[in-house]
Amino acid sequence: MSGQLSILVIGLGGIGSIYSLVCKRGEPNAKLTFVARSNYQALHDNGISIKSAKYGHHHVTPDAVFKTTEDAAGVEYDYILCTTKSLPNAPLPALLRPVVSPNTTIVMIQNGLGIEQPVAEAFPENALLTCTAYIGVWQTSPGNIEHAKLDKLDIGIFADAHVAESRKQKDTAALDKFVSVLKAGGTDVTVLENMVLARWQKLVWNASFNVVCTVMGMDTFQVLACPSATTLVRTLMEEICAAAKANGYELPAGIIQGNLDNTHTIGPYKPSMLLDYEGGREMEVDVILGNPIAQAQQAGVAVPTLQVMKETLECLNWKTAEKKK
Amino acid sequence: MSGQLSILVIGLGGIGSIYSLVCKRGEPNAKLTFVARSNYQALHDNGISIKSAKYGHHHVTPDAVFKTTEDAAGVEYDYILCTTKSLPNAPLPALLRPVVSPNTTIVMIQNGLGIEQPVAEAFPENALLTCTAYIGVWQTSPGNIEHAKLDKLDIGIFADAHVAESRKQKDTAALDKFVSVLKAGGTDVTVLENMVLARWQKLVWNASFNVVCTVMGMDTFQVLACPSATTLVRTLMEEICAAAKANGYELPAGIIQGNLDNTHTIGPYKPSMLLDYEGGREMEVDVILGNPIAQAQQAGVAVPTLQVMKETLECLNWKTAEKKK
Repeated sequence: MSGQLSILVIGLGGIGSIYSLVCKRGEPNAKLTFVARSNYQALHDNGISIKSAKYGHHHVTPDAVFKTTEDAAGVEYDYILCTTKSLPNAPLPALLRPVVSPNTTIVMIQNGLGIEQPVAEAFPENALLTCTAYIGVWQTSPGNIEHAKLDKLDIGIFADAHVAESRKQKDTAALDKFVSVLKAGGTDVTVLENMVLARWQKLVWNASFNVVCTVMGMDTFQVLACPSATTLVRTLMEEICAAAKANGYELPAGIIQGNLDNTHTIGPYKPSMLLDYEGGREMEVDVILGNPIAQAQQAGVAVPTLQVMKETLECLNWKTAEKKK
Repeated sequence: MSGQLSILVIGLGGIGSIYSLVCKRGEPNAKLTFVARSNYQALHDNGISIKSAKYGHHHVTPDAVFKTTEDAAGVEYDYILCTTKSLPNAPLPALLRPVVSPNTTIVMIQNGLGIEQPVAEAFPENALLTCTAYIGVWQTSPGNIEHAKLDKLDIGIFADAHVAESRKQKDTAALDKFVSVLKAGGTDVTVLENMVLARWQKLVWNASFNVVCTVMGMDTFQVLACPSATTLVRTLMEEICAAAKANGYELPAGIIQGNLDNTHTIGPYKPSMLLDYEGGREMEVDVILGNPIAQAQQAGVAVPTLQVMKETLECLNWKTAEKKK
């Protein structure tokens, strides 16, 4: 990387905003470009205001803000941070196409399973990093972000069996550089060997608490107080563990009880999926439930509870879409 | 039956009100006693007002109204119409105990499966009739009832394999007498050989549309318009058919498509379970889902979708109970 670091962030919700701040802290001379949709005007006019229990109050002013990646094209970006939701109508490769150049490193900080493969296939020559974020961060109004204390990022290359060895080397070099920026920025970052395993591991919570809270309209403490809701959460976690195992990703023993205990410790909390539903926004059903279900079925594992919850969330997404008609 | 017919109705919602009217039409000299809970005061002061597309406008004035069956004790009732919801905290045998005398015929006009056995066991000497009602009737405010055109009642004795032959004869005599009252009252009544089969058959709708409408907050037409909701409905119907078959009750071929087609024909409609949930009332989860699930499991049939929906409804009942605390 020569000269000034150029970073494009696509999707300026809580996650995109916090890691914009982190990059700017790690590399103060970095040039920041945003692609923002619903909060475009606010970011264009005022940038981002962040109140963080960890980082304090900050203002992040981007060098440029665009509405689409087409508008953001024509510049060489060193890193593209993908922090959008993964929705069927906005496939990431199409979104990235206008802004990826030969030396761009693509960084995915997104939820769900099976999200990297389409990007790896669309951009076989580019370095690809993938992350799972454990962070409590909310956009309270357009451009206004609140962040709790936790900000833990697991990162790695997308080392699926299908990825060629030459690619892994390129990815690893890009990984080292980006991790140094993140560390300088203050994030609690851990490099993992196996990010697919990490994604299954995060699904244990995301495909259970996230889902049950949303379907029932409950916060995490209500779920823990309601016996049937806790039973559903446990069953969903068990199905995720079984699906992961059948696909060669054995999750640590005690992960289910650990997730339940942690959820107790954190305090009552409305997960992002419930906030999306209540806010009339489409929820990420395919990458949180659809892809693990497909992988379970390919491995011959029955996951009926995940299946019913997927269909239930699809119904709720349908209701949201109908209301907007 | 000698002298004036004495009828006790327990539970004066839509169903209890309509069949009070029907009994009074069939036997104008009948003495009507009500046990009413939430609408006690309205019924005590003003009786019931019924606007029916089939029967016209009517006023039903009971001879007596009580808050509990203990209060209604001390009189010999020829018939007791049980038209309460079947909820775990209000078991019917305990409710009936104070008002059943040796010659009382117990008539159950209630939803769900497996509701007769506890009553048959508690009152082995009494005639027991059981009914499924296909009727659109609502209590719009305490004591005010609206009824659409349909009023179809399937009735029979509870001829389970466990019931003794002597009992069946007593039941059949009571059945003939009561059916003549219902027919004189104008109800479209059909005597069925096998009421357990009839209950499984009614569950095809009640354990699917009823449930999916409630969980999703959709009317029947929204469910039919939403592909994932229709898929869930079909799966629930298939599981009910499989559970019924494994228990020796083979439902007619085409019953699933028939139910879907009928639901199209009837027009958009909010099922009673959804109205109960929206009204902050406890829903009948055990008799609509719990009992068929138990019978499926005893027969070794997997019904995972019914199971998940049961737990989901239990969560919603829990939320309702929490709000009342």
